[in-house]
Amino acid sequence: MTGIGDDCAVLRVPPGHETLVTTDFSLEGVHFRREWQPPESVGHRCLARGLSDIAAMGGDPMAAFLSLALPGKLPQSWADQFVKGLLKLAKQFNVTLAGGDTSESPDGVLADIVVVGSIPNGKAILRSGACPGDRVYVTGELGGSAATLDLLFSGRRKKLRPSLFANHFSPIPRIHVGKILRETRIPTGMIDISDGLSTDLSHICEESEVGAEIWADALPRATLLGHKVDLHFALHGGEAYELLFTAAPATKVPSRIVGVPITCIGEITKRRRLASVGADGTRSELKMRGWQHFQQRSPRK
Amino acid sequence: MTGIGDDCAVLRVPPGHETLVTTDFSLEGVHFRREWQPPESVGHRCLARGLSDIAAMGGDPMAAFLSLALPGKLPQSWADQFVKGLLKLAKQFNVTLAGGDTSESPDGVLADIVVVGSIPNGKAILRSGACPGDRVYVTGELGGSAATLDLLFSGRRKKLRPSLFANHFSPIPRIHVGKILRETRIPTGMIDISDGLSTDLSHICEESEVGAEIWADALPRATLLGHKVDLHFALHGGEAYELLFTAAPATKVPSRIVGVPITCIGEITKRRRLASVGADGTRSELKMRGWQHFQQRSPRK
Repeated sequence: MTGIGDDCAVLRVPPGHETLVTTDFSLEGVHFRREWQPPESVGHRCLARGLSDIAAMGGDPMAAFLSLALPGKLPQSWADQFVKGLLKLAKQFNVTLAGGDTSESPDGVLADIVVVGSIPNGKAILRSGACPGDRVYVTGELGGSAATLDLLFSGRRKKLRPSLFANHFSPIPRIHVGKILRETRIPTGMIDISDGLSTDLSHICEESEVGAEIWADALPRATLLGHKVDLHFALHGGEAYELLFTAAPATKVPSRIVGVPITCIGEITKRRRLASVGADGTRSELKMRGWQHFQQRSPRK
Repeated sequence: MTGIGDDCAVLRVPPGHETLVTTDFSLEGVHFRREWQPPESVGHRCLARGLSDIAAMGGDPMAAFLSLALPGKLPQSWADQFVKGLLKLAKQFNVTLAGGDTSESPDGVLADIVVVGSIPNGKAILRSGACPGDRVYVTGELGGSAATLDLLFSGRRKKLRPSLFANHFSPIPRIHVGKILRETRIPTGMIDISDGLSTDLSHICEESEVGAEIWADALPRATLLGHKVDLHFALHGGEAYELLFTAAPATKVPSRIVGVPITCIGEITKRRRLASVGADGTRSELKMRGWQHFQQRSPRK
């Protein structure tokens, strides 16, 4: 890579590969609060958002670009720790911080992360490939991040120890799993669960012109403080950064990939509705509950 | 291009080409004011910032990504006109708006533009190639945008008609000129003048480990309301989006490229200082006057 510190960064994508580009805001008061998330976590989560999008295509991340605007009164140590958290995660996935922009912010910390990746020509896993009869799978566990946020919103806990709530404070984007899934040609469609299972599943269904039923009992719910989180968090909670994918019924899908559990949670249907099916067979409409990060449930609103 | 509306956009850079990436904030109160710049101009300038960086490498722009956060109370018409201005410029340079992010803004309009371009392998014109003896050139005219901003700051004019002050409200990034310069292998080093001539020349000098002298009398000063702008604006005024490049003394440089005037304004020196030389031969140090967009001279500060 050349051109770092020049007008543009210059990246060489391997021959026979396409370039992937994704961009995500992390805005104070919208995506994080300085009183709840320590700066290292904010930096980590900022990059994780972009890496997770690369994972959802089955791609390889190459470089990140950070546009960062800071309020004049922000302590330098906050910015240092933010960058430290971001760079630590970047190193883990061999991603170079190749440029960006800096500015003074009129109000609050404003970050926009761009991640550029590569993928062999024509091999990106899109949202549009799911077919009726396909099974629906998720990686890891669901609802842990949203339930953690709920604890913070409730006021029952002022501060949480980040190491005990890692799926909220330092989620690991599923880059390796996404790449292996792509190489083994398992998924017909794939997305990451940044906006919540119900919302992201609806994106797959919309793009693929299909519906889906989710088996509520099968959902791999996260454990928080010794208890499984409420079903609600697993169905609708955002910022999970797990992968949601579909695979043909005849495809053999491993129960673990690089140690990450893979769980079958439902089926794609011809009928273009989302439904949730309980253990007793009762069927109810699965409403798309858009995840609005911090604002929707902010006590300030 | 595939994947628009998917987790990532998928771009195919032509074989034998590298990928260029640049990212720039446009923040209300820092880079524009809603009371001064109409929304179409803000959208135009937002994209122009990114395109100008691609021009400064001699590249071809391919796609733009817009992260846009808007305050809840912003009229929809403002956002529509902003996007209209951005798309009009995009169309002019055959650039696709291929994705981005949207969010509610905690305060003011926040935009971050990413432009991805391509350039033949190893052909990007960097800042680091200037040599002692090289001549220094600029495209177009300088200081018009900064002098317009000064009019707005002075309070002498509340509103300006954008069509009469085009180099401020709708600057044209020098994509075609940059590409022709690269194809004809004229420049040894190149940068765009987004931060002001003195600052951007200092970047070239720093990266190339040289100095420069600028012939004050030779500067192509813009005309505003019938008068040439002050030398100060031409030397230090930002947001000009002209190209600044260096070329070996033996290289024949045309006086116009696709209709845009090219002016020789000085010389690269071995001595690592920036100097300004007057018509009478008097020599003074050229101080780097960092362009802080709107904040530095804002009456609010």
